[in-house]
Amino acid sequence: MQNSIISDRLKPYLGPQIYTQFTQLAIQKECVNLGQGFPNYPSPQFLRQAISEEALVESLQYTSTSGLPRLLKSGAEFFSKHIGISIDSEKEISIGAGAQTILVSVFQAILNKGDEVICFDPSFDVYKPMIEFQGAKQIGIALKIGKWNNKEEMLRKFENGIFRQDKEDIWKIDLDSLKYHLNDKTKMIILNSPQNPNGKVYDQEELDQLADILENYPNVVICEDAAYHHLPFGDYEIFNYPRSISHKRLSKKTICVISAGKMFSATGLRVGFAIGPESIIKGVKAAQTYHLFCLNPIMQAATAKSLELCMDGQYFKEKRIFYEKQAQTLLKGLVESRLNLNYMVPSGGYFLLTDISNVEIPEQYFIHPDTKETLSRDFAFVYYLANEFGVVCIPMSPYYSDKRIGEKLVRWAFCKTDETIQEACRRLK
Amino acid sequence: MQNSIISDRLKPYLGPQIYTQFTQLAIQKECVNLGQGFPNYPSPQFLRQAISEEALVESLQYTSTSGLPRLLKSGAEFFSKHIGISIDSEKEISIGAGAQTILVSVFQAILNKGDEVICFDPSFDVYKPMIEFQGAKQIGIALKIGKWNNKEEMLRKFENGIFRQDKEDIWKIDLDSLKYHLNDKTKMIILNSPQNPNGKVYDQEELDQLADILENYPNVVICEDAAYHHLPFGDYEIFNYPRSISHKRLSKKTICVISAGKMFSATGLRVGFAIGPESIIKGVKAAQTYHLFCLNPIMQAATAKSLELCMDGQYFKEKRIFYEKQAQTLLKGLVESRLNLNYMVPSGGYFLLTDISNVEIPEQYFIHPDTKETLSRDFAFVYYLANEFGVVCIPMSPYYSDKRIGEKLVRWAFCKTDETIQEACRRLK
Ligand SMILES: Cc1ncc(COP(=O)(O)O)c(C=O)c1O
Ligand SMILES: Cc1ncc(COP(=O)(O)O)c(C=O)c1O
Repeated sequence: MQNSIISDRLKPYLGPQIYTQFTQLAIQKECVNLGQGFPNYPSPQFLRQAISEEALVESLQYTSTSGLPRLLKSGAEFFSKHIGISIDSEKEISIGAGAQTILVSVFQAILNKGDEVICFDPSFDVYKPMIEFQGAKQIGIALKIGKWNNKEEMLRKFENGIFRQDKEDIWKIDLDSLKYHLNDKTKMIILNSPQNPNGKVYDQEELDQLADILENYPNVVICEDAAYHHLPFGDYEIFNYPRSISHKRLSKKTICVISAGKMFSATGLRVGFAIGPESIIKGVKAAQTYHLFCLNPIMQAATAKSLELCMDGQYFKEKRIFYEKQAQTLLKGLVESRLNLNYMVPSGGYFLLTDISNVEIPEQYFIHPDTKETLSRDFAFVYYLANEFGVVCIPMSPYYSDKRIGEKLVRWAFCKTDETIQEACRRLK
Repeated sequence: MQNSIISDRLKPYLGPQIYTQFTQLAIQKECVNLGQGFPNYPSPQFLRQAISEEALVESLQYTSTSGLPRLLKSGAEFFSKHIGISIDSEKEISIGAGAQTILVSVFQAILNKGDEVICFDPSFDVYKPMIEFQGAKQIGIALKIGKWNNKEEMLRKFENGIFRQDKEDIWKIDLDSLKYHLNDKTKMIILNSPQNPNGKVYDQEELDQLADILENYPNVVICEDAAYHHLPFGDYEIFNYPRSISHKRLSKKTICVISAGKMFSATGLRVGFAIGPESIIKGVKAAQTYHLFCLNPIMQAATAKSLELCMDGQYFKEKRIFYEKQAQTLLKGLVESRLNLNYMVPSGGYFLLTDISNVEIPEQYFIHPDTKETLSRDFAFVYYLANEFGVVCIPMSPYYSDKRIGEKLVRWAFCKTDETIQEACRRLK
């Protein structure tokens, strides 16, 4: 049987994802891996302990497909309290095996063939296939890029040990382009805030503008991908920053996607939540029944226990300080590196972007080492970096519909230990 | 936002599944639940112990989307050894979160819009939506029902403490109907052996006949749903009974679906495997990347450890004896019950079927207690049974394309403790 056995929808996606590809490269070349977005320090002991204990007592059989009532309750309580909304644990919250499967359920629950989904690029590259698999179409609208700062400009922003973020550094929704692309086929807008990869947090003014525009499109749903809602930096209040799920005029049309794995620095946990109006949650629950059936009860119970333990939010506040420090340390290392990059200060999340337009990349790296295909600038940069500096980051053209923009950008993960970040900085110096 | 927000594909499936519906009824009416197929005795201590230990040491971050090499290796070794085939752990095996997500990945990897998938009814009701969600169509072909035995006939089969199975009791593929339905659109045939719900094991002769017929349809893939491959009864060799994945002429066109949860009597484990040719496994791995990303590393490691511990197969042989005994005990209870049923001896799995044609069901049960809709005979029987006997089983019309056949049948789960089965029998007597 040949390759032709594979369905049309999947044929373009048979190759390894960029994360796999460059994690493999990192291992092969013994690089410091600032590619994939997973913490490389230990997950919290209380979570491990909870799993270890539940393993001996919790039932190991099917749970209700909607999830353990305890998990739905603790999730509803935690998010109600910290986001500042009211969530009915029976009707307005659902669980899934990570934010990724929640996204699948949300897309499956809402999208029909021919529907359009607007993403603000740079956007998580996995949205596109997941949207396409429902027969719908992703429409990538590039954000207006904030001001790139060169090394001197960055040094001028360095005050009291941190890089200051200025207003003009911040990425913005291109409202004209948004209006241009909205039409009767538009079913959904994805709002990922804090955003992977550029660390943008959508502010109150933008949400208000969005609400104004959507008055004319009452059927458009906002999918708020809040995988990093525990990590808005600076003055933003953790969990309770400007967001669609708590916005006066947007909340009723918002389905919010949450990753317990990202919240507990345990990306392998594979527990996530959807919160939103009953009319959508009903569909998310039905979809999850048919693509997952139910979640492992031990992981459900341990996640519930961990949320209960952290109900006051203190754990997340401390972690936020840590992540923000890592972001600043990595940024400093990149500014002090031999690489002629342009920079921006992220507003949250696991990642920061740099512009690589001015980096001189030797010709040879524009050719794929195995396939001999011609590579775009961002991919060439990653091979150059891996080979000559021993560090791996992620190329950004896969995050853009308009590849020409993404080819100038790479993403660096700072969800790493001090040692890892310092070793990367040492190698880049 | 109204119900209309839900996608067309999901609208027919918004209600609770029959398993949820009747598990809820069982709780509400304090019934003995012989509905849903999960063991109600403890999962093996070695599995719990493995999870508990791995929770403290295994990484809790993303694994490779293909799975931990250790799990792929132990799976490949175990199934190679016991099924009697050779599996390359890098290319011919993939993992997923239970057989259910494996099925989703298989369907997503292979099925295009308009493709047809043949199922032999009675067939697991969840196939249909999962097939439809890919834009493909399920074609249910009813098996030729074996001979139903009334109480006297059953008693005549009772020898040395067990009910003997005779040749004429066994369900058969309707080869003429199969040939009639095969066409250029047929992409897949699902072969679930041992079969949920009727406990059929497809025999060597049938597989040979299938191989003959498929000579004319070289592009048809067989999806062997082997969720119960550790439970063929009687003379059948455990794991190594007649099966498509090890059949001389079928193996190369077979993708086999395995449930680690069912194997270890731990349906909440949510680990499963696909084994098959590289050309299909490649697609299964890609599909799983986009609908699950990766599996919880602790569950992966604990499953690997458990497979290694049970590599000689002894654990499963003992369990098989237990399940076969439960099947016989339940069957005896049903024969001795006040219910005027017809019976057949199952050849494997978790379930047995009875025919309910001759049961006198009071009028009132043909009306749904809440919705007041008219119910089919099988649903009416379940309400009758729950209310007047305090036992719950599962109606079988959802397992049939031709509802008229399924309306005469109900399914009883025997994957239950002695106490549960005896209490059910006591209530039915
Ligand atoms: C924006 C975004 N959404 C969703 C996910 C998936 O999260 P999870 O690991 O919970 O599936 C990621 C993971 O990187 C992400 O960056
Ligand atoms: C025939 C069949 N296939 C697949 C499954 C799903 O198994 P799992 O629990 O591993 O997802 C079941 C569960 O009942 C089943 O009966």
